[in-house]
Amino acid sequence: MSALDSPEALEAALLAIGDERYHDKHPFHLAMNEGRLNKDQIRAWALNRYYYQSQIPIKDATMMTRLQDPALRREWRQRILDHDGDEGDEGGLERWLVLTDNLGFDRGYVTSTQGILAGTRFAVNAYVDYVRTRPVLQAIASSLTEMFSPGAIAIRVPAMLRNYDFIDDKTLAYFDKRLSQAPRDANFALDYVKAEARTPSEREAVCDALRYKCAILWSQLDALHYAYVEPGNIPPGAFDPASLPDR
Amino acid sequence: MSALDSPEALEAALLAIGDERYHDKHPFHLAMNEGRLNKDQIRAWALNRYYYQSQIPIKDATMMTRLQDPALRREWRQRILDHDGDEGDEGGLERWLVLTDNLGFDRGYVTSTQGILAGTRFAVNAYVDYVRTRPVLQAIASSLTEMFSPGAIAIRVPAMLRNYDFIDDKTLAYFDKRLSQAPRDANFALDYVKAEARTPSEREAVCDALRYKCAILWSQLDALHYAYVEPGNIPPGAFDPASLPDR
Repeated sequence: MSALDSPEALEAALLAIGDERYHDKHPFHLAMNEGRLNKDQIRAWALNRYYYQSQIPIKDATMMTRLQDPALRREWRQRILDHDGDEGDEGGLERWLVLTDNLGFDRGYVTSTQGILAGTRFAVNAYVDYVRTRPVLQAIASSLTEMFSPGAIAIRVPAMLRNYDFIDDKTLAYFDKRLSQAPRDANFALDYVKAEARTPSEREAVCDALRYKCAILWSQLDALHYAYVEPGNIPPGAFDPASLPDR
Repeated sequence: MSALDSPEALEAALLAIGDERYHDKHPFHLAMNEGRLNKDQIRAWALNRYYYQSQIPIKDATMMTRLQDPALRREWRQRILDHDGDEGDEGGLERWLVLTDNLGFDRGYVTSTQGILAGTRFAVNAYVDYVRTRPVLQAIASSLTEMFSPGAIAIRVPAMLRNYDFIDDKTLAYFDKRLSQAPRDANFALDYVKAEARTPSEREAVCDALRYKCAILWSQLDALHYAYVEPGNIPPGAFDPASLPDR
């Protein structure tokens, strides 16, 4: 790895990490985009990712407990608003539940999170824990996966609409909103780490944070792929598609 | 599930949980015992499980921070001693490193934990976190997987000696010690939860703790199986057997 001796070198290094490790390269996402998953596998994905979505505002509130600057807190408060919404103006979490509704899940079952994989739970909790315990520079850097999200969504949404007849654009409304929210958040965080990481070792710490976060996303798909793509691997207690009423 | 209206009903419920969820039933362990793994897969297992072993004394020290009774702390101190050892009297962690030595790993690489799976790291950290944050009754109950460990070891050790020519009994010394340590620890913890869980809902909380711990062990094998049994699934940055010098 070349010396991280400038903000521009840091940005290039972050882009390279995303190129290698962002979860759009994971076999599960590749299979999803190529239409190789069945409805039950899409269901398992939506159910498990609900837990990730549900903990994002918790993660952002955790971040706010670490920020002494009101301007920074205001920035982060917006993220919570995006996910939690407001009366008459639903947020991202509600939009995710529209997706799980349309896939045939009972909302109480989804929000109880009782059927998710342990691998999902531990990875998501690791994200909140990271933001709680690491230096603020790294806590903020861990959000930089948003740099790669719009590109992934731009491929995923048309691919899903084309390949799965049980998916329509209303079902995927969550992703539309993220196409405008994610770049705003990513630009803010990228500007922050480029300004605040002032030494090569601080820039390396920023890269470590992004690698860690990529592993958090990637390992959730490892768990999904293992449990739901190969037969016979659903762990005890996890969602079993055979239990759904429409089967 | 029947009412948990007595200590005996609790013990029966715990045994039933182990029967269903203890990781000796996991496909990866079944394959290991049946001689269906190759040396690289055994290596990946030993490397990843080192991280679990390394965090057990941390978990036990975390437990001690929660215990106000010196007699209870003495009991828990013994567990740390078992793993960390003493000068001239190696502990379980050192014995685990003998296993990774014999499998061809550099000790610095193993103890750096840089090559472990993210799924391993998040699951193990979830164990320490559970002990740090849950009621003491549940924190202690999460150690009850030791009830099932001697039975698993009694099958695993002869199976490995029989099936893998690169494994000898010196390599597996870790497990010999656990055959006497685990029942002592499990009996203590079982007596504790039978005495201290006084209502059906407290006994249900004990069962939940054991289920959670079983999921912590199980999901580590999910991650291993996904990454190292099927080809092409090793996550970015994790141990790649092709990188070992003897290949």
